[in-house]
Amino acid sequence: MSRLLIGIDLSGTHIKVGCFDEGLRLLERTSVATELDMDPKLVVDRVVGAIAALLDSTGHQLGDVRAAGIGTPGPADYQAGIVVKSTHMPAFRDTPLRQMVIDRLHCPVTFDNDANVACFGEFTAGAGEDVDDMVFFTLGTGIGCGIVSRGKLIRGASGNAAEVGHVIVCPEGEPCNCGKRGCAEAYASATNTARRARAAIEAGATSSLASLAEISCKDVYQHLARGDALARRITDDTASALALLCVNMVHVTDPARIVFAGDMIGAGPALLDPIRERFDRLIWGIRGETVEIVFASLGEDAGIIGAAALARESRLAGPI
Amino acid sequence: MSRLLIGIDLSGTHIKVGCFDEGLRLLERTSVATELDMDPKLVVDRVVGAIAALLDSTGHQLGDVRAAGIGTPGPADYQAGIVVKSTHMPAFRDTPLRQMVIDRLHCPVTFDNDANVACFGEFTAGAGEDVDDMVFFTLGTGIGCGIVSRGKLIRGASGNAAEVGHVIVCPEGEPCNCGKRGCAEAYASATNTARRARAAIEAGATSSLASLAEISCKDVYQHLARGDALARRITDDTASALALLCVNMVHVTDPARIVFAGDMIGAGPALLDPIRERFDRLIWGIRGETVEIVFASLGEDAGIIGAAALARESRLAGPI
Repeated sequence: MSRLLIGIDLSGTHIKVGCFDEGLRLLERTSVATELDMDPKLVVDRVVGAIAALLDSTGHQLGDVRAAGIGTPGPADYQAGIVVKSTHMPAFRDTPLRQMVIDRLHCPVTFDNDANVACFGEFTAGAGEDVDDMVFFTLGTGIGCGIVSRGKLIRGASGNAAEVGHVIVCPEGEPCNCGKRGCAEAYASATNTARRARAAIEAGATSSLASLAEISCKDVYQHLARGDALARRITDDTASALALLCVNMVHVTDPARIVFAGDMIGAGPALLDPIRERFDRLIWGIRGETVEIVFASLGEDAGIIGAAALARESRLAGPI
Repeated sequence: MSRLLIGIDLSGTHIKVGCFDEGLRLLERTSVATELDMDPKLVVDRVVGAIAALLDSTGHQLGDVRAAGIGTPGPADYQAGIVVKSTHMPAFRDTPLRQMVIDRLHCPVTFDNDANVACFGEFTAGAGEDVDDMVFFTLGTGIGCGIVSRGKLIRGASGNAAEVGHVIVCPEGEPCNCGKRGCAEAYASATNTARRARAAIEAGATSSLASLAEISCKDVYQHLARGDALARRITDDTASALALLCVNMVHVTDPARIVFAGDMIGAGPALLDPIRERFDRLIWGIRGETVEIVFASLGEDAGIIGAAALARESRLAGPI
């Protein structure tokens, strides 16, 4: 009888599912399309159907699954395994997703924040696999974060640790989605990098970006490459906020490596170099030289790998 | 045969030593005077002599000691057990203090940062004894910090985690002792609260503090109580920096309780109330109401208790 792990990643519009052996080797992956207003029970049916197909195609069956892990965006009650609300699937309201999956897979199921899960994936098998202490940022609509300290995710008293996107980098600064001001996310997420460019143009700034009907973060970095001065100013501010986050995290949890992920890392050195340059300027002499700032290496697989890795970890910790 | 723990606290001009039973009950404490330029070997002789006297007075002997813990200010190599430099005892230069104590006590000895140790004392037996996740700040010359996550101190990749006094709260702000600018410590330590008052007076500010030859942090809070406007402004800025630190720590490690210690907490509600008021304003709605901000409860004993508690923890983790 085989011993398999299943990783389920709900962070995107498609649900990603992966089937792994106990050494975390990916045997097969797939994704499940969801539709708006799809009933949670139907979503779980489809996910379980996808898992059954994965198992079948690799010559296994449901009884071979030893543990599964789920990564999902908040707001959720991670301790209770409940999705409070979902942007992609509005029919999920206080949905006990973990228990629903346990009832179908008949094995222990871990349930965690999507950024924590992707962080743990990179930590286990990606850009952080050779360190014990790591900070992970994923740059998208907001800034997701995960923190690993001596090999374990920091979860906090209420399971809400590592919301580092809401660290205040500029008191009384830009308004943030969270209702407060000056959060790092209000400057440096992909969405807010694009938003600040749009706002500057609406306020009269000259830029080659002004001719676009819609401005994305990718556009901003493309126009930076072509020498646009506004794109330079906007991306400089993004780099400053992210460098400040890195410095502050060195002073709080002292990582050996800081890993950036998300579509925005497609900008490459134009994103990373100015972060490193500002970090070197801001960090004190005692430690700065030993912290590496790098890009994630697992791409879209980070979530399923991390979910499976957390499932394995909880299994090793003993029966649930 | 008894099973005793010894806690040694090098954070002050006097070395504090405590003798505890395995339930961490304090049996007896003492302190050892040190003189400037005293040789490390002589300091260890005096500490061991004090321990022998403590044991004798409680009817025990050296063989009853199961483990000891040392808390010492940095710079130190905490992993290797070496004091790199000491303000109070300049003859300590790259001194292998942990090994020197092991050689005399013949038992496992833990060695940690003085703020970590005091934090662990408050966590184990003081203001944080009923929570699992705690952040600790001690306000003195600088801002010391300790972070407990799920019952364990966060130590970081190089043992330099929880240097939260150097989190940047005001980019390009006040110069800090660390050589950088805008660190929380540059505003809100006891020393820098007093320094900012002096600087404001030198720059021409009117204040009842101006008549003093020397201004201490205690003076600033005393003149605040008498209605001095400059003292109000200075202490408001101290509270703002500390509240920002609290908010940022909620977003990073999500503590159930934040504990302030150090002589400066003698200011009482004049220190704590404005921190809480600003914290409530800055924190997002999701979590703020469940984080408590309180004063430490163990006073000067936090260090010896924490050192003994860490010794007990390492003993429980197995033989070293």
